[in-house]
Amino acid sequence: MSDQPTPESESQEGEEERHSLSMDTLVSFCASRGFIFPSSEVYGGINGFWDYGPLGVELKNNLKAAWWQRMVRERTDVVGIDSAIISHARVWEASGHVEHFSDPMVDCRHCKKRFRADQIPDEPCPEAKKKKQADRPCDFTEARDFNLMLQTEVGASVDGRSVAFLRPETCQPIFTDFKRVRESSRQKIPFGIAQTGKAFRNEITPRNFTFRSREFEQAEMEFFCHPSDREAWFERWREERVRFHRDIGFDDSNIRMRPHASDELAHYANAAEDVEFRFPFGWQEIEGVHDRGDWDLSRHSEFSGKDLIVTDEETKERFTPMVIETSMGVDRTCLALLVNGYTEEALDGGETRTVMRISPALAPVKVAVLPLSKKLSEPARALHGELSRYVNAFYDEAGNIGRRYRRQDEIGTPYCVTFDFDSLDDGQVTVRNRDDMSQERVPAEGLGAWIRDRVGVAL
Amino acid sequence: MSDQPTPESESQEGEEERHSLSMDTLVSFCASRGFIFPSSEVYGGINGFWDYGPLGVELKNNLKAAWWQRMVRERTDVVGIDSAIISHARVWEASGHVEHFSDPMVDCRHCKKRFRADQIPDEPCPEAKKKKQADRPCDFTEARDFNLMLQTEVGASVDGRSVAFLRPETCQPIFTDFKRVRESSRQKIPFGIAQTGKAFRNEITPRNFTFRSREFEQAEMEFFCHPSDREAWFERWREERVRFHRDIGFDDSNIRMRPHASDELAHYANAAEDVEFRFPFGWQEIEGVHDRGDWDLSRHSEFSGKDLIVTDEETKERFTPMVIETSMGVDRTCLALLVNGYTEEALDGGETRTVMRISPALAPVKVAVLPLSKKLSEPARALHGELSRYVNAFYDEAGNIGRRYRRQDEIGTPYCVTFDFDSLDDGQVTVRNRDDMSQERVPAEGLGAWIRDRVGVAL
Repeated sequence: MSDQPTPESESQEGEEERHSLSMDTLVSFCASRGFIFPSSEVYGGINGFWDYGPLGVELKNNLKAAWWQRMVRERTDVVGIDSAIISHARVWEASGHVEHFSDPMVDCRHCKKRFRADQIPDEPCPEAKKKKQADRPCDFTEARDFNLMLQTEVGASVDGRSVAFLRPETCQPIFTDFKRVRESSRQKIPFGIAQTGKAFRNEITPRNFTFRSREFEQAEMEFFCHPSDREAWFERWREERVRFHRDIGFDDSNIRMRPHASDELAHYANAAEDVEFRFPFGWQEIEGVHDRGDWDLSRHSEFSGKDLIVTDEETKERFTPMVIETSMGVDRTCLALLVNGYTEEALDGGETRTVMRISPALAPVKVAVLPLSKKLSEPARALHGELSRYVNAFYDEAGNIGRRYRRQDEIGTPYCVTFDFDSLDDGQVTVRNRDDMSQERVPAEGLGAWIRDRVGVAL
Repeated sequence: MSDQPTPESESQEGEEERHSLSMDTLVSFCASRGFIFPSSEVYGGINGFWDYGPLGVELKNNLKAAWWQRMVRERTDVVGIDSAIISHARVWEASGHVEHFSDPMVDCRHCKKRFRADQIPDEPCPEAKKKKQADRPCDFTEARDFNLMLQTEVGASVDGRSVAFLRPETCQPIFTDFKRVRESSRQKIPFGIAQTGKAFRNEITPRNFTFRSREFEQAEMEFFCHPSDREAWFERWREERVRFHRDIGFDDSNIRMRPHASDELAHYANAAEDVEFRFPFGWQEIEGVHDRGDWDLSRHSEFSGKDLIVTDEETKERFTPMVIETSMGVDRTCLALLVNGYTEEALDGGETRTVMRISPALAPVKVAVLPLSKKLSEPARALHGELSRYVNAFYDEAGNIGRRYRRQDEIGTPYCVTFDFDSLDDGQVTVRNRDDMSQERVPAEGLGAWIRDRVGVAL
């Protein structure tokens, strides 16, 4: 995600596109199945904050693991870090966030509500409405800047604790750690530093479920290269990131690339391109690929007084590396996976089944163990224990088998394993496939590795 | 970690025990090798905040994955969640943190410094010292309570945004999500909810490297049971957690259990026992097992007005579940793993080698691919690519082979794979073992699975 609000793209968010899935259906499904629900829900929730339940946390962790596998582990030129959420206030002065990371806001003098200057509502003022002056509009102040960073105070000195900020993006600590990471990992330019983690923005109007929230998770990678290579690396990373999104299950009907127009670019950016997904509320960014130039390292060099220039070992040339960033919204991509996967299918008998068609590698549960009778609990539980050493396995002995299959279908479990009385004799179990509902009889021994190899972990 | 400061145990922290490893050595090792270093380091750091580098993030992720595997995936009676860091202010009123989570503090009227009332320094006042009144002591105010929660403001209303807190522990959102999680996951009492994640405390005096920091990570599990089972579950979880710490590599020489004396218990706690590790700065808690009774659910029920009582399906008895908590400090346990693993060994030739003797399952890198000549880069890189589909693999072609072995020894890599010119002909590579430096010749084909099976992932 770019670090400056982009009104052009946001203005679409309100528009409900024709889409087979309504957000209300998905939000309610996610809460009742334990994917995602409001944080502090028993206290009425807290606007813009969401909790991931038992299935949601597995989905999100699988997505982050797939990203880490592809971006860090399979490459020799990218290393990972995990930096603190709270950083020194100077970090955000250098990055420009203290000065510029704000939206222009207006206040209504009647109802005291605050609105983004470019998103003033059509409705009459609710306070005026209460006083039976239904048509009276809001009476707005001049626009003022409102900083989106969450602020806190750290330390215990009596003279006032130090102001600190919750990071509004995970990339800045990568820049401040650049020198230490480069030296300790003995990497040479070109190379990248990646991290996943929480970031916070005091969004004026959180909306569209987890799409625009105040606490969210990013998966960002900053690639440091020679100035002569920046276009080539921008192109390579752009292609690599599209490939990733295709590999996790999106296709041309629901993702597209959108290059930023020159007037959309942040002042320091040379080029930027978004990966957009077709949500029920319109095409929206789930990832951005940005050429940030030498802005960040130059600024941190200037503000910290530390030399962040590198020297080419062969040519002895000294230069500030250019940065190509890939920035994925983890919550947004999870939401896209749920939108993309949620399917209602008409079956032959006139019945409907809900299936979450999600890549097996990302599915929260890989296999469910379902004994045909509670009398088979003991050996079926033993099989669950064995399988869970290989993949995330679920155990369910409640209800008829058809209902138990449906429960797994709707949460996207690629395999169901039925343990029956014959299994006691022949050591075989029935494996049912989520997508085509086909069944096959396979040996229980070695089943863990069999499933692990089929679902895959590396994308 | 218990949610109330425990001065009894903290008072030991200053004492330097006789220990083969000095903290200075470890801190410097961690920074130079890229395990852990100060956050915002180019700005002089920020007291109490640390970043994990390329090796540290892998170590920490492996520890969290091992915990998750053991606590969530291998069990049918515990489910995971991932809740927001910022929660509704009422959560922390109900939990008692707003009122009670504080230390008594005194301020010096000369130097304006603030100290914990029970930790007043011996030195003369530095401000008085400057004015050449070297012997003048601090002049302290009466003790006042200082809340340890970090506070922020969320929202955009003009009448003042809402105060919100960064969670000082990860367990409270588990309690507020209890009803939703129980219903959506169809769990019955007894069952548990687990999560790992960041928590924040404005510690007066962060110290002992990552042991006492202001931003830290917890791995907590709250187990909900019938009142008649609480002692039995406390005992089971106590044993299970000790087993975990033994399995990750600690033994009787460096861990011990310390039951809390009755006057140490939080007012709501029935029993508590710490897992302590022998750090260079003394025996200190890395995990706590607590019987929290029905305190948390009762309070959230009272404050939210939501009924958090459960009904036993068979007996129809209605009761508030009792809670047994296991609470591991992730950073503390990582630090213990590094202290425990760091070893300097005298070799036969009079040389010394540093070896990080850490469980292969937790080692940041599982295998390093080392071509004997840069001419072998291409096939060696292909082997690295293949291995990285199975385990975290590292590639290093710089320096003589002995030096490359040493680099891997000190970061704890269990296997080094040497690719030589013979490998081109016979398809075999030399695998060197970290611990005994033994070498064996094995086929390159199938090596990924060979190493994955040996290092293990499930504990």
